[in-house]
Amino acid sequence: MALIVQKYGGTSVGSVEKIENVAERLIAAKKAGHDVVVAVSAMSGETNRLVEMAQQISAKPDPREYDVLVSTGEQVTIALLGMALKERGYDARSYTGSQVHILTDSSHTKARILDIDESKIRSDLDKGRIVIVAGFQGKDEHGNITTLGRGGSDTTAVALAAALKADECQIYTDVDGVYTTDPRVVPDARRLEKITFEEMLEMASLGSKVLQIRSVEFAGKYNVKLRVLSSFKEGPGTLITYEEDNMEQAAISGIAFNRDEAKLTILGVPDQPGVAHNILGSIGDANIEVDMIIQNVGADGTTDFTFTVHRNDYDSALAILNKTSKELGAREVIGDNTIVKISLVGVGMRSHAGIASQMFKALADEGINIRMISTSEIKISVVVDEKYLELGVRALHSEFGLDEAKD
Amino acid sequence: MALIVQKYGGTSVGSVEKIENVAERLIAAKKAGHDVVVAVSAMSGETNRLVEMAQQISAKPDPREYDVLVSTGEQVTIALLGMALKERGYDARSYTGSQVHILTDSSHTKARILDIDESKIRSDLDKGRIVIVAGFQGKDEHGNITTLGRGGSDTTAVALAAALKADECQIYTDVDGVYTTDPRVVPDARRLEKITFEEMLEMASLGSKVLQIRSVEFAGKYNVKLRVLSSFKEGPGTLITYEEDNMEQAAISGIAFNRDEAKLTILGVPDQPGVAHNILGSIGDANIEVDMIIQNVGADGTTDFTFTVHRNDYDSALAILNKTSKELGAREVIGDNTIVKISLVGVGMRSHAGIASQMFKALADEGINIRMISTSEIKISVVVDEKYLELGVRALHSEFGLDEAKD
Repeated sequence: MALIVQKYGGTSVGSVEKIENVAERLIAAKKAGHDVVVAVSAMSGETNRLVEMAQQISAKPDPREYDVLVSTGEQVTIALLGMALKERGYDARSYTGSQVHILTDSSHTKARILDIDESKIRSDLDKGRIVIVAGFQGKDEHGNITTLGRGGSDTTAVALAAALKADECQIYTDVDGVYTTDPRVVPDARRLEKITFEEMLEMASLGSKVLQIRSVEFAGKYNVKLRVLSSFKEGPGTLITYEEDNMEQAAISGIAFNRDEAKLTILGVPDQPGVAHNILGSIGDANIEVDMIIQNVGADGTTDFTFTVHRNDYDSALAILNKTSKELGAREVIGDNTIVKISLVGVGMRSHAGIASQMFKALADEGINIRMISTSEIKISVVVDEKYLELGVRALHSEFGLDEAKD
Repeated sequence: MALIVQKYGGTSVGSVEKIENVAERLIAAKKAGHDVVVAVSAMSGETNRLVEMAQQISAKPDPREYDVLVSTGEQVTIALLGMALKERGYDARSYTGSQVHILTDSSHTKARILDIDESKIRSDLDKGRIVIVAGFQGKDEHGNITTLGRGGSDTTAVALAAALKADECQIYTDVDGVYTTDPRVVPDARRLEKITFEEMLEMASLGSKVLQIRSVEFAGKYNVKLRVLSSFKEGPGTLITYEEDNMEQAAISGIAFNRDEAKLTILGVPDQPGVAHNILGSIGDANIEVDMIIQNVGADGTTDFTFTVHRNDYDSALAILNKTSKELGAREVIGDNTIVKISLVGVGMRSHAGIASQMFKALADEGINIRMISTSEIKISVVVDEKYLELGVRALHSEFGLDEAKD
């Protein structure tokens, strides 16, 4: 007998039939003797439908009213799920974020959870009820409805698990766990039994979009055991936990990659304090997110500065950079929107020397030229021409022994 | 400068464009110097969409969860309306029923309003804001979401007007007021400047479905001035107020009619105490609503008993009555589902003798045979063959001087 918090995303509750499937899964957990709390997202497509109406009214809808609008999406799901459980003879109660006092700050559309009053949920669990909570939403101290931003249902589930000191927080998605890399690129990719929070953060931010980053941070901070599982097939999924937890210390846990990269370089910038700010300030002002940044100082008192952006932002970033280039008296601006990023991720990297050179050699053996390199404590990222993506990922997957079963 | 509560129904907010029209109307009222509070329904079609999903899950969805589900309909409307006002530079705040503490009893799907905490609304009005409240919904003392049942948005508006002691409660609909009768039957039908609450109740229950009956009762009880207006064209509408308010005392205010009637008679029932209960009890058990009831005692110790039901319920009522007839040893059951009801309504009737005979003569002059008669203090209803509906209504409309302008 354990207390389990489950979370089902939009695809898992995308139709009445799928909501009924979720009800069956909850009943199975209940029958197995567990106390069950579930957080759910809006039915897939529903949030977009609501947002489209808002955008007919305003290009930039009032954020407070936007939250009142989109929070109805999850409310529909919790009600239908509650009905489905009741129809099957199981006692259940659905709650909006406001009703269980998921207190957030007042940052509409991207609020952060401050506190949860778990007393109502505990009282329902004591009565044998399955408790259903609308994900993604809360209320601020004035009673205004807030939302956590897209993907925030994961965070709701983790916050509930933390508040209730749940034994496990199970995130149900359309994949059956976290893989060593994308199985569409490497058919031999393997589901990981376990992964650390830190590795998961790197995998997520690098494009393996299984879990919302903030929820992983939150789970790490509040010591919540997270598990990623499939809504559509049985299996143990992947447990996200601490490095200390007897994990096998493979050097590399997985390979993440990102196809949507573009790279821009400003050459021969007179090297003065504040150059980086001058270059990136105007990019940031245009709401363009910058990923990797590299600066090399040349011998002639000038510097070369390179960074990557999302491919969609390439044209506008290039236009801004050409303008900046003139202002700064730089020599030239060059760019390339046919590049990709490949990253090795693994906590074992800390204690294994030579991972980087092993990586670079494996790529060189395949004739792949590396265009940029960036490293952190548990990852190494390289930028290569997009035509080498599959070849590079497969070569590294094999080189670091990820193809074979470890256990 | 007045405090006005407006209410817009599902047709008036049936699309984003229509919601923007409502925003313009609210701004006009604000510009005219008024404090404005508005209650709105779900966009037309939205409630049905939600109910259909519920019915895929259960023939009889759990009522608590049903309310959680359908209350999202109005929440979408308030948010979109709030955005539209903000977009036009007007400060506005939307609230769900729960947020402004519209306290109801716990009768899910048909709750009754017990109290409203108007402090939040007053504080917003003091700041110059337009306040938007979701119609049709509230919460019970435990914080559960409740709904007032279909049409309950009218009641929300009246309850808000009562709590705020508003100068007027304006119900915007797709008609521009209350008419002496249906203009589709009598082209000369005239919009009434004023009508009393009692007359309105009789007109509404007799088939002139402009306002929800409960909201009219509520307005009468709490002394709220109600006005019915069109959302789509300008005009003063019809004021629903007290008899005392200097009303012109025309004998008759209007003529209501109902096409969907059917009549059933059980003949030769042995006349004993409890006969009426025996006959109507089984009809009521089958959830069939009975309208007019007439009983005549015959000379031979038996009685004839006649009542009307909605035409849709005719077949099932007939089957039940045939069964009851055998049990009671009655002589015969007869029925007719090709009848209609026509009613004269008017508070002036109290002080004008001879209205009934004038009515009967006017119908007789047209060769219309009266099949049933029923009277109350301010109305006289007759049942006639359906083929006489238009002829009868026109004859009476003319006979009682409703064609001509009174003022």
